[in-house]
Amino acid sequence: MKRIGLLTSGGDCQSLNATMRGVAKSLYEAYGSDEIEIYGVLEGYKGLIYGNYEQMKPKDFSGILTEGGTIIGTSRQPFKYMRTPDENGLDKVKAMKDNYKKMKLDCLVILGGNGTHKTANLLKEEGLNVVTLPKTIDNDIWGTDITFGFQSAVNIATDAIDCIHTTAASHRRVFIVEVMGHKVGWLTLHAGIAGGADVILIPEIPYNIDSVVAAIEKRTAEGKKFSILAVAEGAISVEDAALSKKERKTKYKNSPYPSISYKIGKEIEEKTGQEIRITVPGHTQRGGGPCPFDRVISTRLGAAAAELIKKEQYGYMVGFRDGEIIPVPLEEVAGKLKMVDPNASIIKEAKSIGINFGD
Amino acid sequence: MKRIGLLTSGGDCQSLNATMRGVAKSLYEAYGSDEIEIYGVLEGYKGLIYGNYEQMKPKDFSGILTEGGTIIGTSRQPFKYMRTPDENGLDKVKAMKDNYKKMKLDCLVILGGNGTHKTANLLKEEGLNVVTLPKTIDNDIWGTDITFGFQSAVNIATDAIDCIHTTAASHRRVFIVEVMGHKVGWLTLHAGIAGGADVILIPEIPYNIDSVVAAIEKRTAEGKKFSILAVAEGAISVEDAALSKKERKTKYKNSPYPSISYKIGKEIEEKTGQEIRITVPGHTQRGGGPCPFDRVISTRLGAAAAELIKKEQYGYMVGFRDGEIIPVPLEEVAGKLKMVDPNASIIKEAKSIGINFGD
Amino acid sequence: MKRIGLLTSGGDCQSLNATMRGVAKSLYEAYGSDEIEIYGVLEGYKGLIYGNYEQMKPKDFSGILTEGGTIIGTSRQPFKYMRTPDENGLDKVKAMKDNYKKMKLDCLVILGGNGTHKTANLLKEEGLNVVTLPKTIDNDIWGTDITFGFQSAVNIATDAIDCIHTTAASHRRVFIVEVMGHKVGWLTLHAGIAGGADVILIPEIPYNIDSVVAAIEKRTAEGKKFSILAVAEGAISVEDAALSKKERKTKYKNSPYPSISYKIGKEIEEKTGQEIRITVPGHTQRGGGPCPFDRVISTRLGAAAAELIKKEQYGYMVGFRDGEIIPVPLEEVAGKLKMVDPNASIIKEAKSIGINFGD
Amino acid sequence: MKRIGLLTSGGDCQSLNATMRGVAKSLYEAYGSDEIEIYGVLEGYKGLIYGNYEQMKPKDFSGILTEGGTIIGTSRQPFKYMRTPDENGLDKVKAMKDNYKKMKLDCLVILGGNGTHKTANLLKEEGLNVVTLPKTIDNDIWGTDITFGFQSAVNIATDAIDCIHTTAASHRRVFIVEVMGHKVGWLTLHAGIAGGADVILIPEIPYNIDSVVAAIEKRTAEGKKFSILAVAEGAISVEDAALSKKERKTKYKNSPYPSISYKIGKEIEEKTGQEIRITVPGHTQRGGGPCPFDRVISTRLGAAAAELIKKEQYGYMVGFRDGEIIPVPLEEVAGKLKMVDPNASIIKEAKSIGINFGD
Repeated sequence: MKRIGLLTSGGDCQSLNATMRGVAKSLYEAYGSDEIEIYGVLEGYKGLIYGNYEQMKPKDFSGILTEGGTIIGTSRQPFKYMRTPDENGLDKVKAMKDNYKKMKLDCLVILGGNGTHKTANLLKEEGLNVVTLPKTIDNDIWGTDITFGFQSAVNIATDAIDCIHTTAASHRRVFIVEVMGHKVGWLTLHAGIAGGADVILIPEIPYNIDSVVAAIEKRTAEGKKFSILAVAEGAISVEDAALSKKERKTKYKNSPYPSISYKIGKEIEEKTGQEIRITVPGHTQRGGGPCPFDRVISTRLGAAAAELIKKEQYGYMVGFRDGEIIPVPLEEVAGKLKMVDPNASIIKEAKSIGINFGD
Repeated sequence: MKRIGLLTSGGDCQSLNATMRGVAKSLYEAYGSDEIEIYGVLEGYKGLIYGNYEQMKPKDFSGILTEGGTIIGTSRQPFKYMRTPDENGLDKVKAMKDNYKKMKLDCLVILGGNGTHKTANLLKEEGLNVVTLPKTIDNDIWGTDITFGFQSAVNIATDAIDCIHTTAASHRRVFIVEVMGHKVGWLTLHAGIAGGADVILIPEIPYNIDSVVAAIEKRTAEGKKFSILAVAEGAISVEDAALSKKERKTKYKNSPYPSISYKIGKEIEEKTGQEIRITVPGHTQRGGGPCPFDRVISTRLGAAAAELIKKEQYGYMVGFRDGEIIPVPLEEVAGKLKMVDPNASIIKEAKSIGINFGD
Repeated sequence: MKRIGLLTSGGDCQSLNATMRGVAKSLYEAYGSDEIEIYGVLEGYKGLIYGNYEQMKPKDFSGILTEGGTIIGTSRQPFKYMRTPDENGLDKVKAMKDNYKKMKLDCLVILGGNGTHKTANLLKEEGLNVVTLPKTIDNDIWGTDITFGFQSAVNIATDAIDCIHTTAASHRRVFIVEVMGHKVGWLTLHAGIAGGADVILIPEIPYNIDSVVAAIEKRTAEGKKFSILAVAEGAISVEDAALSKKERKTKYKNSPYPSISYKIGKEIEEKTGQEIRITVPGHTQRGGGPCPFDRVISTRLGAAAAELIKKEQYGYMVGFRDGEIIPVPLEEVAGKLKMVDPNASIIKEAKSIGINFGD
Repeated sequence: MKRIGLLTSGGDCQSLNATMRGVAKSLYEAYGSDEIEIYGVLEGYKGLIYGNYEQMKPKDFSGILTEGGTIIGTSRQPFKYMRTPDENGLDKVKAMKDNYKKMKLDCLVILGGNGTHKTANLLKEEGLNVVTLPKTIDNDIWGTDITFGFQSAVNIATDAIDCIHTTAASHRRVFIVEVMGHKVGWLTLHAGIAGGADVILIPEIPYNIDSVVAAIEKRTAEGKKFSILAVAEGAISVEDAALSKKERKTKYKNSPYPSISYKIGKEIEEKTGQEIRITVPGHTQRGGGPCPFDRVISTRLGAAAAELIKKEQYGYMVGFRDGEIIPVPLEEVAGKLKMVDPNASIIKEAKSIGINFGD
């Protein structure tokens, strides 16, 4: 009898259920539903720490391929506090190991993003059998070309830009669509290109507001009535990029701007005299069901994770590289961030069609 | 030879082009494209004031049934300044009449919302032949059950709530989705019911924050992990509703809240201790192409407007009442607002399934 | 203690679950979940005949607002065989009455279309308490302006026409999209107008193929490269409409055409020499989740059905008329068909913009 | 002054306009709109043969990123007749070369699929400067991992399966969705996995009907009420695969089945006694606008084609391999087909979750 745990951690995203379905279906097929038991650890690492879990049945994985969210819940448990006891003095790492043993697991399958992978690697170091799966709308996990959730989020952010396009084309205005992504710009970059944005600002390429303004005024001069900017939450000006994190914190302590888009919008308004409108699709970008692309990716990754379990090959994240599924050692993944390379081919292509990146 | 003008005014919305296509196709069919000339007045009343217009051809109306925005542009020209000369001393009303004459129009077809209808009625009083069409995502035009744009906006706002649903169900949180509507709650009401919101707050029913909090805590007590609130931009508390407009302005002069949702969110957070997330789909609600429902409505209304022109029956808005298209005299429409009746059947039905309206 | 049954019958459609949720939520709110028991009769009247049902819980109705299909299953049980014993000699009507009694129901809520309503009326005549709800993508139920499922199906059929539009515009071709509807043309009519079809053929208006050909050739003469026909499954030529049902059956016994569209396509090909393509979206038109419009309608109708139960007002279908919800006596509904009136305002408007109906 | 031609050939698909926009925007940016002239060759190779083309302007490429179809039209001109004179004795190849010269082109950019690439290679061999772009919903072009149109078609086919899912789950039935693809199964494979199909039949893996029937009966035995089959147009039985093309033609000369799905459906019906429903989304799979994934791919490929033109590097198709854009010599592409490898990782993963491929 095999006993496998499933755990989803961090912000939710669109294809978590599809991925777990892939893992479970593949395991049930391989072992038969009598020879394998699957446990859902509830609400992320919190469930592992406090021993909240429940046994799942084959039917729990039926009909969830297209469902958003996660049927076992999730929570954010920052890695940096994992070694800190909780408010009742509980040693969290020890508690996780104890519960793993109590559940008599052969392996714990963990679906999550960057923070999640640091804790997963910690569990590996502590001797637990783990296999992980790259979940994030941000596409910023090291070691894999693709993460599930990303394409679904691109679709939603692009939808927002599409909607704004028609309204922008009817009025004379500059529109900013603020796309999720505090540290990396993949989502903004792809949604920006897909949505036909005129300006794309991402954390990896600090912007010069004068460059942005010049791009807008060039469009106005060409008779175009509107401009659309796709701005990542983490977009940063050249000036701010030169500051230390602490200096930036001080500088923006009493900022009147709810987010970077409002600051950029204000500056453009002052420099061009044009009306600005800002749209923030926000959490909708993590929501709804997975797109077909993600469903295929998730099914494949889930099945590949099950394959590792069958081979008792633990301690890996299942990733995609150059179109092939590969296991990546967890220690290579943990603590790294896959960022957009400002010199990447996609950036050059985007620039070649006239998209401004503020540089 | 007939000469007809088209003018779209106010905030853009989804089915303006479909409506103009209906008008134009019906006129071209009736008169033949040699016996009728259609002029597009550019960017709303501004185009009429300053004489910006262009002749349109049958092919301009091909392929626009599904396109969002307006091919002739729009702008907001507040009614209350229509009698005020512009910065160069130009008498706007006289200018509009002069341009109407210069264009030798038999009739001007005006697509717009409440403000637009006031000015349209003014033009009627000044002796111009006008026919109007009820455009607004707010569904607040007096004299018609349906306005085009409304259902498309309901779809987008509902999509946002649907997306939030999956993310809310994965975390333990209270989510607020802020829906467009400063004065009326139709859009919030319909999107809220369609999206399965637990609480719906609209301007027509001032809310008591304790009632809202009680509804959320009832859900928590029943073991439900999340609650979703659909809140209209113009939602108002019982206390604020008791103030005069001036008093409210003073009270909120230095408000730290970008919008009402943030205020409500803060209060709920303080009273329940639950995490709050706020999503504002914003201008996306006016954007994108029209849904099939709106396309049918628009085609019908457009054809009916053409019918009035054929009969030289001017001075009416074309509306829907009880499933039938009817002409409504402009003076009956102008200056009135169609609000949600707090005792309407739809409110009772929503309450009967447990939706809280804050009252 | 109240005991209520739910039963969905006939072809499935998009908003069945949303409607049942409306009924159940309203009943649970009114009585408390301890004072009411709701039973799902499985797979339509078959479940009532053979005693297959199960008790449902409040959580069964959670999260189903947006789900297509029916959680309690459905089947087609033709009315005309209801009085005929089954293959084992079982008296079906008696069996239904016996099971109703065995379940100790206060009322059975039946969701279905035309056939379903005939049997529902039979049950009423046999003394059972029934309340019904108008389910059909065909919109052909007598006594109500709106049926749930219809608008969702319009959306899918329109999507199909939209898709065909881009492909038709790229090639030089005539495209036929065959829309569901054997007896009535509501779905074809609305999807056809919404999709910008050039020709719409519905059962209520027998077509003359020469009229259709002339419409296509007029477009070709005007330089338009393609034509799109929205054809109802039950479209019928003037010649065939003159035949008796039996004569038609004989005439088409060995027909090489899978459906009417193929016959029409062949004739157009022969008469115009243009290439024809036929698309049949088929069962997709009943599938997927309900659109926001249907979700609102369903929630309202469901709540209104619960209201009748609270008042013990049995024997009615809950319908919409002129924007208001009204109870309609079952005997007025059963056996009638709400067809498109060839002289209706919507037909005139469609014709006025140049749509050909083959007449 | 540079002079560039654009030509779209073969069946239309979703991202042709987005790709041409990428080419054009990149060229206009690089040369300025005064130093480059772009000509649209109308309706595929037909336009090149008969000299139908028109000069395009920068604004022609505005707003087409999201539009389906092709603004310059397309047609199918089979390669095998290219060396055959037309009905008036015209030498087509010579005519194409003459028109190329007459247009004074520096390069002709050709967007098309497999047949198109054979003719493009012929033009290259005849000394013309050509650059090609891989267009097809079939994803079967040799030399590139990705073709534009494919993902958009996957989305539509998956939507169809999703819709069928809800209706299948409500009734007790076996549903077949017939997906485009006469020679290759990529589209069926991806849509089948994404849609949660239970059986996937593709041309590359001849099926054994008994294997399919066993898969369906296994599901029935497990208490599942329905099964969904995704069947490629070109699915083929083991028996038929053993026949020569000529033998197959003879065998099916008088076949009563409109397509393979009907044959398969009939066999399943006879062997299982279950009700079968067949849905054929057909041409809708090529229609509608491109999905965000395709828009990004198309923009990148278009910009890369422009880059080759800038470098005067002719005779290549622009493809994607392992995430990077690469030029592939036309002679390597022409005449080959990229098929699904029955032993590919994706097939193994699909099988591991229990999907039956009929083998």
